[in-house]
Amino acid sequence: MNKLTNIQQILKQMQIDAALITDPHNVFYLTGFNSDPKERLLGVMVFAQAEPFLICPAMEAPDAKAAGWMGEIARHTDTQDAMHILYETSNKRKQPMNSIAIEKAHMTVDRYDAINRYFQSPEIHAIDDQLNAMRVVKDEGELDILRHAAGLADYAIEVAAQTMREGMTEIELMTEIETALKKRGITHMSFDTTVLTGPKAASPHGKTGDRKITKGDLVLMDLGVIYEGYCSDITRTLAFGEPGEQAKEIYEIVRRSEQAALEAVRPGITAAELDGISRSVIEQAGYGEYFTHRLGHGLGISVHEFPSIHGGNTMLLQEGMVFTIEPGIYIPGQVGVRIEDDVAVTNDGYEVLTKYPKQLTIINP
Amino acid sequence: MNKLTNIQQILKQMQIDAALITDPHNVFYLTGFNSDPKERLLGVMVFAQAEPFLICPAMEAPDAKAAGWMGEIARHTDTQDAMHILYETSNKRKQPMNSIAIEKAHMTVDRYDAINRYFQSPEIHAIDDQLNAMRVVKDEGELDILRHAAGLADYAIEVAAQTMREGMTEIELMTEIETALKKRGITHMSFDTTVLTGPKAASPHGKTGDRKITKGDLVLMDLGVIYEGYCSDITRTLAFGEPGEQAKEIYEIVRRSEQAALEAVRPGITAAELDGISRSVIEQAGYGEYFTHRLGHGLGISVHEFPSIHGGNTMLLQEGMVFTIEPGIYIPGQVGVRIEDDVAVTNDGYEVLTKYPKQLTIINP
Repeated sequence: MNKLTNIQQILKQMQIDAALITDPHNVFYLTGFNSDPKERLLGVMVFAQAEPFLICPAMEAPDAKAAGWMGEIARHTDTQDAMHILYETSNKRKQPMNSIAIEKAHMTVDRYDAINRYFQSPEIHAIDDQLNAMRVVKDEGELDILRHAAGLADYAIEVAAQTMREGMTEIELMTEIETALKKRGITHMSFDTTVLTGPKAASPHGKTGDRKITKGDLVLMDLGVIYEGYCSDITRTLAFGEPGEQAKEIYEIVRRSEQAALEAVRPGITAAELDGISRSVIEQAGYGEYFTHRLGHGLGISVHEFPSIHGGNTMLLQEGMVFTIEPGIYIPGQVGVRIEDDVAVTNDGYEVLTKYPKQLTIINP
Repeated sequence: MNKLTNIQQILKQMQIDAALITDPHNVFYLTGFNSDPKERLLGVMVFAQAEPFLICPAMEAPDAKAAGWMGEIARHTDTQDAMHILYETSNKRKQPMNSIAIEKAHMTVDRYDAINRYFQSPEIHAIDDQLNAMRVVKDEGELDILRHAAGLADYAIEVAAQTMREGMTEIELMTEIETALKKRGITHMSFDTTVLTGPKAASPHGKTGDRKITKGDLVLMDLGVIYEGYCSDITRTLAFGEPGEQAKEIYEIVRRSEQAALEAVRPGITAAELDGISRSVIEQAGYGEYFTHRLGHGLGISVHEFPSIHGGNTMLLQEGMVFTIEPGIYIPGQVGVRIEDDVAVTNDGYEVLTKYPKQLTIINP
């Protein structure tokens, strides 16, 4: 209940009567109950001055208890109005309900309308920033899980390195990777596994397809697993057979850029400074215009969360933050290289969670 | 542009100036551009009296054009305020913007706040029902795609029947199924593939896990593929070795219940009547309390869409509607059977899109 007590403290400080938290990632973070209810209502109703309750689809109530929820559960079935049940259960707490906090970046307008209708147009406040600030710093338990998730991402790259053969399609290689992970009990990837070969790697948002691995290709793989509710995210670019000179040159620049950013990670540096350190290596090598995206993103229960590592973010990094560092160079129609690690800020520096080697791996065709 | 013209007509009839459509499934339906932009803004801005435009992340603009979008594209990058760009692009149309329609079941409150801020608190209307009404009736092109998607779901069950072995875990069987589909070019399932064995099949929302297939088990498989943006959804319950008498009895009741509902499908019957026909077979056999969910759900670009086939839905079925029929009996801790087909309403009856046989298949262990 520690995290929920924290929310109660926030409500008291903000002088808000209650908060309805419905983003499944936040519900998992606060309660340990990990569920994607799709269009159905799942949420925690937290009060400044009373016990919280969980609202969830009736058929999921046993799972919520199994996940350790000890408090009240308000159940709703598909033929009931879940917001009405939320309202009635709240009423029993006999608390003032003049101001309610919600996640504005998650709640839909129809639920917002229902809150206004049932609770008679309370003041509505956003609690997104406060939740993001809680989640952005990981505790030791979370770091252990993230290390394990990162290890499984390393394993996926090893599998790919051992499996890729000439003529194999991108989808076939992706299938080999995911099959190997399923054998280790991983049922969900943190996003669609990306395998891009040859010139296709030059598209930062290219899609795994039918192109066949060909001698001389760079093979870019971007993937991650969900392990105990937490995500990993790794990119490695391997060479299948001896690559051309340009590919080797670009690879080396990206590797230096990534290494420079890693070595700069410590409490007190800003996200923008990190982005700048990495970017300047690529700019000085003359490829600045081909590094077309931010340096990285926070990682945790969501595969993209706070902090965003981009040139406009002056947030100071703190111990316990976890994010990706993933510079790349993409020359359209020719070649693409990205190297991505998951990194945690320690009390005086950094810990790289993903360990797969970064010197250029050349697979013997 | 036919579907967008239809939206313009709806706006004129409702006397609304413009609509901002941002649900990726609706954007795909209206424009043919299939993209999941995650937290980034993707939408079509439709005006009652002017040309629509697409708003999308800059890096996706080439994909939108490749998908056939011929109109204007308003691009935004990660460092820009996408709603501001939406506002400025709208302004150039020089249209009145006193009333704007949105999808209230999709739009988040922060975007709603931004619309109110930029467009100076216009009247906001919901356009969800109108979009659902358009999507609920499938045209011939959509039906062809849905048939193909259903055929791939049949193939998945065939693969499972040929592959299951004693001692194989649920996750292993799921992996075999998905690997076979990937070889046919299917990169996305329409939801998490479910394989439940023995007593686990008695949980309608059980999760694929480590239980091993054992002689005498019923093996319940619920899965579907996404093919050209459209979903299929099939459930078959197979016997691994000779099942017990109770399992056989229950299987036969569910099969009769499903068949009775299928045969009643025609234009003019209500969703509630269908649910009742199926349910009464199970009730008369004495198992009514163990059929704990609605009969089915609409199927199309979303795996759960309109019409919902439940006892409270008095909507008349029309030619071109596509939905699942999926009765089940679940006796906790003992046995579970569900049989699910995808069915389309024809001009005088029905067409079953999924074809895998429904007499009890007994796999020889």
